[in-house]
Amino acid sequence: MFDPASLKYDANGLIPAIAQDHRSGEVLMMAWMNAESVAKTLEDGRVTYWSRSRQAFWTKGESSGHVQRLVEMRVDCDRDCLLLLVEQTGPACHTNRRSCFYTAVRDATEVVIMAPLET
Amino acid sequence: MFDPASLKYDANGLIPAIAQDHRSGEVLMMAWMNAESVAKTLEDGRVTYWSRSRQAFWTKGESSGHVQRLVEMRVDCDRDCLLLLVEQTGPACHTNRRSCFYTAVRDATEVVIMAPLET
Repeated sequence: MFDPASLKYDANGLIPAIAQDHRSGEVLMMAWMNAESVAKTLEDGRVTYWSRSRQAFWTKGESSGHVQRLVEMRVDCDRDCLLLLVEQTGPACHTNRRSCFYTAVRDATEVVIMAPLET
Repeated sequence: MFDPASLKYDANGLIPAIAQDHRSGEVLMMAWMNAESVAKTLEDGRVTYWSRSRQAFWTKGESSGHVQRLVEMRVDCDRDCLLLLVEQTGPACHTNRRSCFYTAVRDATEVVIMAPLET
């Protein structure tokens, strides 16, 4: 049996979780989970992070509708990082872009390489 | 101009960096960088992390030969996480697997889904 308590959490009880589009392979975002949000996510298949700013559970898309359905959770070799293969509805980023990683460093300059989705 | 000091580092001066195969899209590993390792990586295109256990720079593949050549660095919307598109030579994981995320949680059980590469 998989036990969320068997993962390695940092001093604040958190583990980084990378969300990746299960079909395209695009890395969508990185956020944090505690043991309880790992358990919740596995339980109902809706990705729930822990919001460090609000110190509260953050079920992705609860207010925006931009939910993440968990397809598969993966654990890394050190057990201190998670990879979430997800089905993302709409944009993952609060800027309305598909991914949070929309800024590239090219020739020592920042370039925005992704436009917000049309709504 | 891109300034590594403009990123948001944690209390230890570190930022998480996700390495992704630039061709296949496979997420290979997650490790940490400080401002200096971000600068070093951009400078010579060889990915250099900061080892938290050794408290030293860690140029990926320096001893193993399993180097990561930086193809592109991306910054997320909060400026507190990096995505590194890389060209990975050999395995990224110290277990000799292509990716560190070789354990999946399926039906509440851990399953190893990737074999070590043959050497």
